[in-house]
Amino acid sequence: MIVLFTDFGLAGPYTGQMKAVLRGQAPNTEIIDLFADAPCADPRASAYLLAAYAPWFPPGTIFLCVVDPGVGGGRAALMIEADRRRYVGPENGLFELVLRRAQNARCHEITWRPPRLSASFHGRDLFAPVAGRVARGEPPPTLARPVEPERRPDWPDDLLEIVYIDHYGNALTGLRGQCLAPSACLDAGRRRIAHAETFSAVPRGAAFWYVNANGLIEIAVNRGRADRKLGLVVGSAIAIAE
Amino acid sequence: MIVLFTDFGLAGPYTGQMKAVLRGQAPNTEIIDLFADAPCADPRASAYLLAAYAPWFPPGTIFLCVVDPGVGGGRAALMIEADRRRYVGPENGLFELVLRRAQNARCHEITWRPPRLSASFHGRDLFAPVAGRVARGEPPPTLARPVEPERRPDWPDDLLEIVYIDHYGNALTGLRGQCLAPSACLDAGRRRIAHAETFSAVPRGAAFWYVNANGLIEIAVNRGRADRKLGLVVGSAIAIAE
Amino acid sequence: MIVLFTDFGLAGPYTGQMKAVLRGQAPNTEIIDLFADAPCADPRASAYLLAAYAPWFPPGTIFLCVVDPGVGGGRAALMIEADRRRYVGPENGLFELVLRRAQNARCHEITWRPPRLSASFHGRDLFAPVAGRVARGEPPPTLARPVEPERRPDWPDDLLEIVYIDHYGNALTGLRGQCLAPSACLDAGRRRIAHAETFSAVPRGAAFWYVNANGLIEIAVNRGRADRKLGLVVGSAIAIAE
Repeated sequence: MIVLFTDFGLAGPYTGQMKAVLRGQAPNTEIIDLFADAPCADPRASAYLLAAYAPWFPPGTIFLCVVDPGVGGGRAALMIEADRRRYVGPENGLFELVLRRAQNARCHEITWRPPRLSASFHGRDLFAPVAGRVARGEPPPTLARPVEPERRPDWPDDLLEIVYIDHYGNALTGLRGQCLAPSACLDAGRRRIAHAETFSAVPRGAAFWYVNANGLIEIAVNRGRADRKLGLVVGSAIAIAE
Repeated sequence: MIVLFTDFGLAGPYTGQMKAVLRGQAPNTEIIDLFADAPCADPRASAYLLAAYAPWFPPGTIFLCVVDPGVGGGRAALMIEADRRRYVGPENGLFELVLRRAQNARCHEITWRPPRLSASFHGRDLFAPVAGRVARGEPPPTLARPVEPERRPDWPDDLLEIVYIDHYGNALTGLRGQCLAPSACLDAGRRRIAHAETFSAVPRGAAFWYVNANGLIEIAVNRGRADRKLGLVVGSAIAIAE
Repeated sequence: MIVLFTDFGLAGPYTGQMKAVLRGQAPNTEIIDLFADAPCADPRASAYLLAAYAPWFPPGTIFLCVVDPGVGGGRAALMIEADRRRYVGPENGLFELVLRRAQNARCHEITWRPPRLSASFHGRDLFAPVAGRVARGEPPPTLARPVEPERRPDWPDDLLEIVYIDHYGNALTGLRGQCLAPSACLDAGRRRIAHAETFSAVPRGAAFWYVNANGLIEIAVNRGRADRKLGLVVGSAIAIAE
């Protein structure tokens, strides 16, 4: 299974062209769209989102990850194996939290290059062909060489920011559930927000935080939109209340 | 064929995770995205939309339906067979119109539970595994027990509301075409709207109603957006003109 | 491979129903979503977009193209073979640039009609069944008859307009890269815009033009949105600076 994690947006020609490449390389591999709207041009916020959602997928899953504002510049291309899942994408911190939380990880720098490499669409021209080759079992040596990737020791283990707003207006943070006791409160959008187990446990219109189905702390409003009620956007700072 | 009918939105991780589950359970079954933007957290409006679109699909189709604002609360989970199509989703009225219009229907309450059931994402943890098992032919007794589901006798047979706005700004009502003679008018957004057969039958910028390709009455504007011109949103009331 | 090129929008029931038809007709053919948001109800702008993106796909690809504001009126339905790719869709100019740029092209008018043809959704009822039949190898004579399609000699070879805004706010023009030397400038949104090879070659916030990965000239802003900064929308005029 190849899982797509990009900031391409839902619209337009990018995901379709990547899938056409994957279909050519690995016709029998399932392709799953996970996020096409990861934090736009923001590998740091995206890294926390990816690290939260990847472990839910079974071992053997290949994540094709393209949040790549530096495309066409000098950044390297990576192929990573971490806890039996594989990741293909740019070296810009996008895999920092996956690597930091992995029990076992091996990193390769992608040295393979396609006959034609555009300056602006490495997702299609470089990462997708590599992911497809990995999917059909091609071994790393023909594609890459072992590398110690650049790390981001200054990035925190959990991110006190909103990293995603979903269709319901729920605001996902970069904090894992284990960071907060149920008795703790979050400060977000000038409000103090307490914990609840489910939407129906709070009154209509009330804000609360809970641990979502992938382990991230999420701020929601029962029958309302937390983003609008609290003025939250991707990148908004949050704080653990004293 | 498994058809998805949800209010998850187009973006974000929900549909992808459900599809990953379906792929694991029933790898050879086609998955079709019908609506990912059914009326948000509104099982009543969604019920009219679902009942209008389901009959177009061939017998044997499985509809995985998640418009589920009560997730994590006490509502039951249903598995329905109606006119040789199957439906999996929450017991909150979402299937009321499918049941009311069916020649034959059998209902089961889903009693199977997964090893891990999140409080907020039964689409992934409960409904998708059940839909996948149904798709690969698992018989109801291992998953469910016969039940008489709660019904909504107070809901009308057709809904005098806008239930969907499409990409063109066309406003779909909850009224079937048979409710209105071509000579009848609709009142919507403070305008009286007459019937036309096609867009090109009215002047540019003119509003009209017609019976759409799935049998619902739809309000449109030739070369314009009916939602903006008439101020219509999902939930806007309409009336049959005297 | 069947590639979808429509103005249906990402949401709603249109693409799903077309795919259900394709799956029924040609179950083993891959379906790729290229554009679901081609210039809305604008076959002219769409024609330049289609002609730019189609040649990237391999010979044998079938393009199912529905930008069809005249649906239900008198326009004919076409089946085209151009440079070993096939195209199915309305006769409204949508294929004008594909035909003009093709080395070899043959056109057929679709004469086949389904048992039930809705007035508003020929994508589902006419074009998708034909594309599915073409995909499974059905020869033209059972579906269509040779025709000389209506041409648009008044349309330019390249279009001095914005034809698409992507998720990043980049503005794609209808101009091919070969139209401009790197030393040339574009006038768009009251600004004069120079060329750069990549995003990282200009300062943060600066606008530039470049040739995108499919050969179209595109206006972008490094780490910003060109559409908002320059006030560009689909249809905005651009000019080659003197």
